[in-house]
Amino acid sequence: MKVQITEVAPRDGLQNEKAPISTSAKAQFISRLFASGIVSVEATSFVSPKWVPQLGDAAELWPTLPHSDRCSALVPNMKGLERALSVGVGRIAVFTAASDAFTQHNINQSVDESLVAFGEMIAAFRVARPQGHVRGYLSTIFECPYSGAVSPARVIEVAGKLFALGVDEVSLGDTTGVGSTVETRTLARLVAAEFGIDRIVWHFHDTHGGAIANVAEAMAAGFTRFDSSAAGLGGCPYAPGAAGNVATEDLVYFCHRNGIETGIDLNALARASLVVLDLLGRSVTAKAQLAALAACDST
Amino acid sequence: MKVQITEVAPRDGLQNEKAPISTSAKAQFISRLFASGIVSVEATSFVSPKWVPQLGDAAELWPTLPHSDRCSALVPNMKGLERALSVGVGRIAVFTAASDAFTQHNINQSVDESLVAFGEMIAAFRVARPQGHVRGYLSTIFECPYSGAVSPARVIEVAGKLFALGVDEVSLGDTTGVGSTVETRTLARLVAAEFGIDRIVWHFHDTHGGAIANVAEAMAAGFTRFDSSAAGLGGCPYAPGAAGNVATEDLVYFCHRNGIETGIDLNALARASLVVLDLLGRSVTAKAQLAALAACDST
Repeated sequence: MKVQITEVAPRDGLQNEKAPISTSAKAQFISRLFASGIVSVEATSFVSPKWVPQLGDAAELWPTLPHSDRCSALVPNMKGLERALSVGVGRIAVFTAASDAFTQHNINQSVDESLVAFGEMIAAFRVARPQGHVRGYLSTIFECPYSGAVSPARVIEVAGKLFALGVDEVSLGDTTGVGSTVETRTLARLVAAEFGIDRIVWHFHDTHGGAIANVAEAMAAGFTRFDSSAAGLGGCPYAPGAAGNVATEDLVYFCHRNGIETGIDLNALARASLVVLDLLGRSVTAKAQLAALAACDST
Repeated sequence: MKVQITEVAPRDGLQNEKAPISTSAKAQFISRLFASGIVSVEATSFVSPKWVPQLGDAAELWPTLPHSDRCSALVPNMKGLERALSVGVGRIAVFTAASDAFTQHNINQSVDESLVAFGEMIAAFRVARPQGHVRGYLSTIFECPYSGAVSPARVIEVAGKLFALGVDEVSLGDTTGVGSTVETRTLARLVAAEFGIDRIVWHFHDTHGGAIANVAEAMAAGFTRFDSSAAGLGGCPYAPGAAGNVATEDLVYFCHRNGIETGIDLNALARASLVVLDLLGRSVTAKAQLAALAACDST
């Protein structure tokens, strides 16, 4: 068995970080990620620099990226799409949620309004990039930080609308890292029955320490595609100080120990992440990264 | 469904900590643990103060403990047992491993030699405390840091010898936190078939971020008893800087979200752990503790 990991630290991990990181340091980070065996990277976002200053250099970063054909960029609106296309982006991601309260709070639109806007963006993207690739993020799959519980039926409904718009894949996000293994099992079975395995990616957060257990549940239902963030970068905007994205290091360790291939060298990845943590002034918290670095130190 | 958690931070968590903690602070910590709903605490070890200075106050601590009938103490040898009996200890734990290399390195005995010594200690304990309780720790259930892989058959063999000596329960420890979900599933099924469910406790370490996934596997095999450490206190002596015991906070969150009762108030537990982290000069790393404290701060 082999899983496919999409590394989201350069976008989802850095977007909330205050300490500025130079464009060249970002390119070097992504280069080290690829060198460790990562095959797919979400590199940046063409969001307004006013909203996310850390990613304001997306247009400058993109032409310097190694393997930019294996990088994707988040595009929030038509203006962002135009900027992305102008520098050669061939893989885009759009971002909505299962919860109207969440999208209202984040982008001042209902979920359906966001989907209408995506339809226009995706059409424009297809014209410019007939061979291009579109990911649809679907966040708050278990719970919304503003309106509470989300039903599996609602997740299926919005994922279906995203596929109807022509996205190539949907990434299902437990945005606040609350989901239990029972919730994951229930949703994974429903999603597999409705959409199959290949076009679905799981995006777990480790806010309460259960992300790897949820990965195991999704794998048990047959899924093989996961998002994760080097060093667990990203935090949780809805609980400042709490953990966010599941760490790629923890995910890779879990896979390898269970005999599942990732193609990733865990030690090389742990060192690549360490460089960025140092730039951010952050200490190591991802457990498999701590263990890998401790083992490297002692040999 | 209800699980029974044995809180091991006061012994297993503190034993490797250099910063001295006063006897009264330990008693207060244990008092706060009980107040949060914890029902069972491993409170200290009657090991020689030369070996573990942090727990050198075991005999002074014991008489000050709340609910000492629900506390246990590790006893490494006959001298430790005599000290424990002299202050009224009614629940003891002995510590061996599945790996001879591990016990040789730690106590300069083979596993069988350690079991012979335990036989004498347990006999003496039963005479002094006919209603007393004995736990047998069986560490390195998946892998030994000195000699590598451990077979499930070897774990079954040593656990059987511990039960034959009359221990009331065996706590199975993944000492270096390496086990995969597949390894846990395999061992859990064998152990359940051989010894049943009630007398087995699982003691997972989170060194690579997979402890909760392994808890889920053990639960799927029917087990309901787990060890954990408040705030994940304890670290990993075999990889300095790496994580050790699974955090009680993460375990409690996992249980509650899956509809499994623990009787524990997660917020009260998170605050109890925080007091000890402050005394040790350590920051919060347990993810569900971080999330609980962040949620408390923001309300």
